[in-house]
Amino acid sequence: MLEPQLHLSLQCPAPETGFSKITLGHGSGGLLTHRLLEEGVFSLFANPFLDTHDDGAVININGKTAFTTDSFVVSPIFFPGGNIGELAVNGTVNDLTMCGAIPKYISTAFIIEEGLSVDYFWEILLGIKTAAEQAGVQIITGDTKVVEKGKGDQIFITTTGIGEVHPNCNMEAQLIEPGDAIIISGSIANHGMAIMSVREGMEFETDILSDTTSLVGPVSEMMDYSGKSVKIMRDPTRGGVATALNEIAHSANLGIEINEKDIPIKETTHSACEMLGFDPLYVANEGIFLAVVKNDMANNIVSLLKNNPTSRDAAILGKVVDDHHSRVVMNCAMGGRRVVNMLPGDQLPRIC
Amino acid sequence: MLEPQLHLSLQCPAPETGFSKITLGHGSGGLLTHRLLEEGVFSLFANPFLDTHDDGAVININGKTAFTTDSFVVSPIFFPGGNIGELAVNGTVNDLTMCGAIPKYISTAFIIEEGLSVDYFWEILLGIKTAAEQAGVQIITGDTKVVEKGKGDQIFITTTGIGEVHPNCNMEAQLIEPGDAIIISGSIANHGMAIMSVREGMEFETDILSDTTSLVGPVSEMMDYSGKSVKIMRDPTRGGVATALNEIAHSANLGIEINEKDIPIKETTHSACEMLGFDPLYVANEGIFLAVVKNDMANNIVSLLKNNPTSRDAAILGKVVDDHHSRVVMNCAMGGRRVVNMLPGDQLPRIC
Repeated sequence: MLEPQLHLSLQCPAPETGFSKITLGHGSGGLLTHRLLEEGVFSLFANPFLDTHDDGAVININGKTAFTTDSFVVSPIFFPGGNIGELAVNGTVNDLTMCGAIPKYISTAFIIEEGLSVDYFWEILLGIKTAAEQAGVQIITGDTKVVEKGKGDQIFITTTGIGEVHPNCNMEAQLIEPGDAIIISGSIANHGMAIMSVREGMEFETDILSDTTSLVGPVSEMMDYSGKSVKIMRDPTRGGVATALNEIAHSANLGIEINEKDIPIKETTHSACEMLGFDPLYVANEGIFLAVVKNDMANNIVSLLKNNPTSRDAAILGKVVDDHHSRVVMNCAMGGRRVVNMLPGDQLPRIC
Repeated sequence: MLEPQLHLSLQCPAPETGFSKITLGHGSGGLLTHRLLEEGVFSLFANPFLDTHDDGAVININGKTAFTTDSFVVSPIFFPGGNIGELAVNGTVNDLTMCGAIPKYISTAFIIEEGLSVDYFWEILLGIKTAAEQAGVQIITGDTKVVEKGKGDQIFITTTGIGEVHPNCNMEAQLIEPGDAIIISGSIANHGMAIMSVREGMEFETDILSDTTSLVGPVSEMMDYSGKSVKIMRDPTRGGVATALNEIAHSANLGIEINEKDIPIKETTHSACEMLGFDPLYVANEGIFLAVVKNDMANNIVSLLKNNPTSRDAAILGKVVDDHHSRVVMNCAMGGRRVVNMLPGDQLPRIC
């Protein structure tokens, strides 16, 4: 595994728990659990909801509310550009934004393998804290379980999020019509190739960083500006852009046509894909989104997105067509056309 | 492991997925994931929220809302009286009830070890469905990840719940005062000893069943009847009754006095505890709760609870005292008194 750069810890040292490794007792629900929580999690994430130390949080919500959950089992847990903690917050935050919601609250549930270094756990907690602050969400409840050595893999994190649906949100797959534009918010395949570069021992030969980040900024700006013209959004994580586009085509029962030359991809990422034999359309992303928008607003939305550093590589990728229903067809850069299917199998296990 | 009784499957056979075991591909986010979800999860849990097949669900909520999460890593995944699926729903449902809320929506996130039998997975899904129906909650979003063989342990489930706080709910630890009664809703130590009987190979010598069940019925009735007199509730899961009482004493900054002779416990469970050397006060429960209530309402509340089969063994366990602050003291059945501390270490790992 890549040795994690415990850079944050230097400014914010791990608490003096008296332990260097997590033990089964830390998941017992008893005194050790309390000590780990009180001296670690609760103090780091402190907010009025968490401070009650109850098993759940009570919040005030009114109106249309988005609710989503994801388990994160990424391996390795530290990778170029991030760690499993940041990923777990950003992933759930971004799923909320894809529902057209402004993320508000997050829960974190840890399944820790006995023996995990307390320093690593602390670094992951700091990653969670940083990502939560960037996304403007509060960690308001959680859970910690510990399993025996060999029955888990360092740490798995399940985050669940609650968000308020944006007042301009009017997304529905049935509103999608031929001529609508497909927008992509940034360059593809960076997260998956950052993970693969570590797994293949290439991390010192490339500078590919995971794109894990919160999409709250660009999505909110787009919704503020022209939410009514956005018909569907998807973040192309597992299964990549190809799978997300197939899901959209399937939901709309229309065809999608994309142009290979318009797909934003960094040169280093493209090279790494070629070297390792991956089609970048199937490689996971953690900081970009796809949106189907009314054609007449597409250029303005792309211009708006380009002004935000998170979506500076935004582009129009293609359009919705009244042809080859439920399928995605790509006009290849070298000429010709090909069907882009959903990811059939297990290209990249444990990418998120 | 106890061979699961696949009784439900007889009436509701597993879908024809063409696979007998879960593979890494089922967690890829691609075609195999879709097949598993569409022919299994989505059809079994069908409801308007889940039917959108989006990454999240959009619901309408108004007012005070409870939000809670728990990961379930119980081993074995099938045990006398239940399975990990039922436990995962009941556990989160009960955490919501302990916030004084009526559970409404649940998310389920699966971390599956490669090689899990599809029949087992199906049986667990049926357990989830049954428990959700009994508690009156809908499964509205979820996630499925698969990890390599040896990197997990069959299946871990993280559930997150949303509930509407009961209009009569007025719980606050600061309202607790000396003289308040401590109520327990049923007999203790059944879940933990059911799990231990399997682990110790004693499952054919005893008839101890886990008490995993939804507390929605008895808690709702109590809140309807006299919610304003309920000052705090806790379900004594990991760490048992002793740990939950210590948490209450600590929150209230008052003492708690309980009477050993008033603790409801089944004879078989008591014998199993003695045989295996467990103090039942520290053994996990999954279908009972503790409540601190105004003394003058305590007898009426216990009578009410006794009318519901889920809480037929309800009893007054003791009282809050203005003495030994933050500590729990027990009047022993054989005479004398002893301090009941929080569970110090790792008595029963992976009990829930």
